[in-house]
Amino acid sequence: MRHDNRSYSDLREVTIETGVNPYAEGSCLIKCGNTHILCTASVDTKLPDWLKDADKGWVTAEYALLPRATLTRVSRDKALHSGRTQEIQRLIGRSLRSVIDLEALKGYQILIDCDVLQADGGTRTASVTGAFVALYIAFEKMLSEGLIEKMPIKEFVAAVSCGIKDGKILLDLDYEEDSSTDTDSNFVLTESGKIVEIQGTAEKVPFTQEEFFNLLSLAKKGVSKLISKQKEALEIK
Amino acid sequence: MRHDNRSYSDLREVTIETGVNPYAEGSCLIKCGNTHILCTASVDTKLPDWLKDADKGWVTAEYALLPRATLTRVSRDKALHSGRTQEIQRLIGRSLRSVIDLEALKGYQILIDCDVLQADGGTRTASVTGAFVALYIAFEKMLSEGLIEKMPIKEFVAAVSCGIKDGKILLDLDYEEDSSTDTDSNFVLTESGKIVEIQGTAEKVPFTQEEFFNLLSLAKKGVSKLISKQKEALEIK
Amino acid sequence: MRHDNRSYSDLREVTIETGVNPYAEGSCLIKCGNTHILCTASVDTKLPDWLKDADKGWVTAEYALLPRATLTRVSRDKALHSGRTQEIQRLIGRSLRSVIDLEALKGYQILIDCDVLQADGGTRTASVTGAFVALYIAFEKMLSEGLIEKMPIKEFVAAVSCGIKDGKILLDLDYEEDSSTDTDSNFVLTESGKIVEIQGTAEKVPFTQEEFFNLLSLAKKGVSKLISKQKEALEIK
Amino acid sequence: MRHDNRSYSDLREVTIETGVNPYAEGSCLIKCGNTHILCTASVDTKLPDWLKDADKGWVTAEYALLPRATLTRVSRDKALHSGRTQEIQRLIGRSLRSVIDLEALKGYQILIDCDVLQADGGTRTASVTGAFVALYIAFEKMLSEGLIEKMPIKEFVAAVSCGIKDGKILLDLDYEEDSSTDTDSNFVLTESGKIVEIQGTAEKVPFTQEEFFNLLSLAKKGVSKLISKQKEALEIK
Amino acid sequence: MRHDNRSYSDLREVTIETGVNPYAEGSCLIKCGNTHILCTASVDTKLPDWLKDADKGWVTAEYALLPRATLTRVSRDKALHSGRTQEIQRLIGRSLRSVIDLEALKGYQILIDCDVLQADGGTRTASVTGAFVALYIAFEKMLSEGLIEKMPIKEFVAAVSCGIKDGKILLDLDYEEDSSTDTDSNFVLTESGKIVEIQGTAEKVPFTQEEFFNLLSLAKKGVSKLISKQKEALEIK
Amino acid sequence: MRHDNRSYSDLREVTIETGVNPYAEGSCLIKCGNTHILCTASVDTKLPDWLKDADKGWVTAEYALLPRATLTRVSRDKALHSGRTQEIQRLIGRSLRSVIDLEALKGYQILIDCDVLQADGGTRTASVTGAFVALYIAFEKMLSEGLIEKMPIKEFVAAVSCGIKDGKILLDLDYEEDSSTDTDSNFVLTESGKIVEIQGTAEKVPFTQEEFFNLLSLAKKGVSKLISKQKEALEIK
Repeated sequence: MRHDNRSYSDLREVTIETGVNPYAEGSCLIKCGNTHILCTASVDTKLPDWLKDADKGWVTAEYALLPRATLTRVSRDKALHSGRTQEIQRLIGRSLRSVIDLEALKGYQILIDCDVLQADGGTRTASVTGAFVALYIAFEKMLSEGLIEKMPIKEFVAAVSCGIKDGKILLDLDYEEDSSTDTDSNFVLTESGKIVEIQGTAEKVPFTQEEFFNLLSLAKKGVSKLISKQKEALEIK
Repeated sequence: MRHDNRSYSDLREVTIETGVNPYAEGSCLIKCGNTHILCTASVDTKLPDWLKDADKGWVTAEYALLPRATLTRVSRDKALHSGRTQEIQRLIGRSLRSVIDLEALKGYQILIDCDVLQADGGTRTASVTGAFVALYIAFEKMLSEGLIEKMPIKEFVAAVSCGIKDGKILLDLDYEEDSSTDTDSNFVLTESGKIVEIQGTAEKVPFTQEEFFNLLSLAKKGVSKLISKQKEALEIK
Repeated sequence: MRHDNRSYSDLREVTIETGVNPYAEGSCLIKCGNTHILCTASVDTKLPDWLKDADKGWVTAEYALLPRATLTRVSRDKALHSGRTQEIQRLIGRSLRSVIDLEALKGYQILIDCDVLQADGGTRTASVTGAFVALYIAFEKMLSEGLIEKMPIKEFVAAVSCGIKDGKILLDLDYEEDSSTDTDSNFVLTESGKIVEIQGTAEKVPFTQEEFFNLLSLAKKGVSKLISKQKEALEIK
Repeated sequence: MRHDNRSYSDLREVTIETGVNPYAEGSCLIKCGNTHILCTASVDTKLPDWLKDADKGWVTAEYALLPRATLTRVSRDKALHSGRTQEIQRLIGRSLRSVIDLEALKGYQILIDCDVLQADGGTRTASVTGAFVALYIAFEKMLSEGLIEKMPIKEFVAAVSCGIKDGKILLDLDYEEDSSTDTDSNFVLTESGKIVEIQGTAEKVPFTQEEFFNLLSLAKKGVSKLISKQKEALEIK
Repeated sequence: MRHDNRSYSDLREVTIETGVNPYAEGSCLIKCGNTHILCTASVDTKLPDWLKDADKGWVTAEYALLPRATLTRVSRDKALHSGRTQEIQRLIGRSLRSVIDLEALKGYQILIDCDVLQADGGTRTASVTGAFVALYIAFEKMLSEGLIEKMPIKEFVAAVSCGIKDGKILLDLDYEEDSSTDTDSNFVLTESGKIVEIQGTAEKVPFTQEEFFNLLSLAKKGVSKLISKQKEALEIK
Repeated sequence: MRHDNRSYSDLREVTIETGVNPYAEGSCLIKCGNTHILCTASVDTKLPDWLKDADKGWVTAEYALLPRATLTRVSRDKALHSGRTQEIQRLIGRSLRSVIDLEALKGYQILIDCDVLQADGGTRTASVTGAFVALYIAFEKMLSEGLIEKMPIKEFVAAVSCGIKDGKILLDLDYEEDSSTDTDSNFVLTESGKIVEIQGTAEKVPFTQEEFFNLLSLAKKGVSKLISKQKEALEIK
């Protein structure tokens, strides 16, 4: 049993509330336990320079912590420009693009903002999961307005973390667990079980190939449940 | 009647929800119509350099818009470093300090964060009103933990905007009204009716002394209602 | 009597010398006691982006302290980027625009620079008063060169500070008085007595409505004298 | 066969020249084909703030491209502050720390600099491999000078990239291959075969679990050869 | 004859007015024709880190152009951070230090500010000449207050520019001449005729050794006259 | 004799290796004793704004130290933005332009990068000497590709430092000598003996005119030898 009474293979309670921002083309508030992230998708016709004459659109992301999202207050400039922040926003962008048909988005850039209202571990994975929902809603709006001709999504994608602690494999680490585990792995997986992104880091104790496979198996189960939550929020049967 | 069916002297609907952040010593989410601001108060024992040997504590504030708080997305760096942002956070800090007994806070700095989740006009005044509530809660916590000996608050403070449009005096402007009025005035007033801060700006059409007095009268009524809302949220009879 | 032998309702000695910069389209050196500010107006055909296709011109301002304008030296970067600096330059720009016919300026942006050579209190109000003179001269030059067809000025504008100290209302505070008064108010008023901008701040002791009206009355008298000085400098009968 | 006549499982030619900088405590120039990286290790007694009272030392890394390391010149500021640069230097630091006994380094911080003289793909993995050698040499110097009591290295570590192109698994991608493969995976592995870091990214086409295992197997072979090269350069039998 | 009726070996009219800033320990306004520079010397007991335990004090300088010091307005940030600005302030500092007994200044740093109110060529040399006067006055004040025991000045120093145009050697170039000459040389020389700094730049046409000697001879004459002006301003017989 | 057994008028050993970067249009690695600098020349068709409609091209330079080029590690940001760095890169650009026929370069900008791998004194002069070689090679490439019609070089240019120590004139100072000499002079001279740039600085002890002539004579001999080395590297008979 874990400190919050979950079993090793349990996700924290997940809720995804859509339509939480009146201006953004797509938005949701995802809560994974005490990790709360506001995700918005903004549609823009202004493309990055290097895409100006290309036959495709683009999806990119920004990520930020509110200063008091964490136990101790973090300064805004520090939060905004840290290497960690940059790493995470690049991950979110890549993860979303892996399941998007960018050609079908030609002429548009979608800018995802993931603003962490509260952080209790797993903010990067919750950001991916929530950002996909906000993006999906923005696409629905674009479709209904005729900006695009078809839904530019190949399949659903979601993300979850796993870790190893005292030989046990744990799903969906909260902050306390994250600080005490030996490894920290993040998995971005598609509905069909394919791997979009794997980030396995073992700063404290390197892990074996077998351990890694067990992490991956557990992550698959977690992502599968998260995708159900996404579909529920999007009212997809 | 106004475009949202309010009379000229009506506030928008106000709600103040406390305890919305599990880590901050004080917090609330204030909603004035479609303007939603998350306010947190963080207690720190680290004082600014120039206060190190002084016989008092300090209260300061930061203010920021989430990128998609507004109709059009604003870049984070721009939002963070604009002159407008700096002006507003200085206003919030001054307004709070005007009703605080800083000597009673000796040894502590309270850092208020006002993060605008949605902006529909009046963010600076709603920030002052909400920030006071978050600060009050943080003081209650400090009192209960024995960090301070008495409540360092002299009286309640809240803020509201007024404007003149086609000769009519309007209370609590939303974004649409704010864009079309001739003047924009912000009033920070105390429960006893004293003036803490007046910012009257008439970039388009200068106004007369009489008009200004009418603005002030209306603002007093609005602030009085806002202070009732603060007390309700704080469960003060 | 005040520490410099002025009565409560006296301005400090004011001089406005025009034509002090050989390159700027308009310039003056305004001295209000020991507060000395060099004001220049630069005419540019380059407009801000958001004005490119509009039917009007623009007036904006920058304000800066020389590092040793004050008792203690201030670093240049700090002086340039502080919130206070940004607040003041925004105030100067708004104040000037309130009396300008921007349509008559179509195609031009005037950039005002207010560089404080010495600061002894009241730099923001002296900046407004001096900037108006520099701007006026630049408009005369534009008129004489046929760049504009008519004088784009609706009426004169000037600014002054007032404060309350031990129950007395004081006009035109110097640095020593400013540091010891309970409130600090700045008034930007037009020749016809209209209000352009009011900034009343009572960080130390909130003030009553009556006190505020007294401040405003005294400010009106001060501004009236300042506008006489402007006209004298501009050789307007 | 690949465009440079390597088989799918061949590394590019690797050379590691040590002692290339006369000032740094440890240094090497690693060449993996046309990717050339100068690695230095600098020993400092100044620790990061958060480590001041801890019972351990620290190893951290910086990574930068010379402006003309690439086909097209990149500006220095852009190269230095990009998200990619920050991501890579964090990876190098984590990878080295995973095999270091930080307690044995108490009182010291080692700062690794990886400066890419030429970039032809695989700069982040070559940086890890070269940085380890520079670090090892610095430790030898510290040992010989009595600054530390024992070699603070648990085992050797090196890194290599793999990718999938048209169904084939390729080892050690150069820039041309990297641009055309469907996935890009970086593996940091220890001499005993343990996993320190896995970064698998499939922005274009998500990959299956089986494909991922094949990538990992090939990476193990590559890392094994790279560790031989490290030992040769360090003259370890 | 030159465009302003000077002979080739004439300086422009020079005036040095002292005591122009009421706060700085030393100050002067130097005018060389239309080049006007406000120089202040600020005494500080805060030394740069690397001097903390040394047996000497320090003199350093900052240099800046007001935005409209020149024909065309220059932005403040650009003016402040350009390579040219940095080059000039380093030159001023070095030039002053060359004639100062830094040991006699132990415990103090003098910060010179040279703010160019108007620039018509020769701002860097006029800055050196004026800065020396401001520094001298600050030293007199320190002496009279007993902060230092003896005048820490070895000899007087001043600076002037020379150039070659159509084979003629010209002293003290103004902006128009500076733009059209083939070379631009700046000489910082002491009262005894020694060389402190020579900056000869021939971006357009390299010059011969003989030409250079002629430039140096003429510069000596100019500096001699400037030092007379300095002494007059300082009321030194 | 000097500490490294050179006579007073000896250069350190100089080698110039060309073609060291596979991507740059021109490149060389110049070694002057322990000072090693990688010089690349990048050809660009993007000109600076102020040159857009001019009848000439441009040559500019950037200079940077690797963090551990020196005895003590220097932070990257500090190395990149220091006044010294800016001063040096401006010197390199001016020196090269003095011998270039910019009209013959119309339509192109050449960006020189001088990256100091190791610094043992004389980096600015070695940068000029090496940069000229890289530039020459780039011009050869442009000629062979028909981008320019003739070699836009008027004559060769190289640079060397000299100093005075205990009354002796020394050529080509290394770091140890540079730190202990009384003056530090840098000479950029052309093959025909003309002066392009002289920077004589005597922060410690001002020098006489005679001493300066002796420095210049010695510099001429040094530059003559350096130009032989350049020609050898370029395989010019």
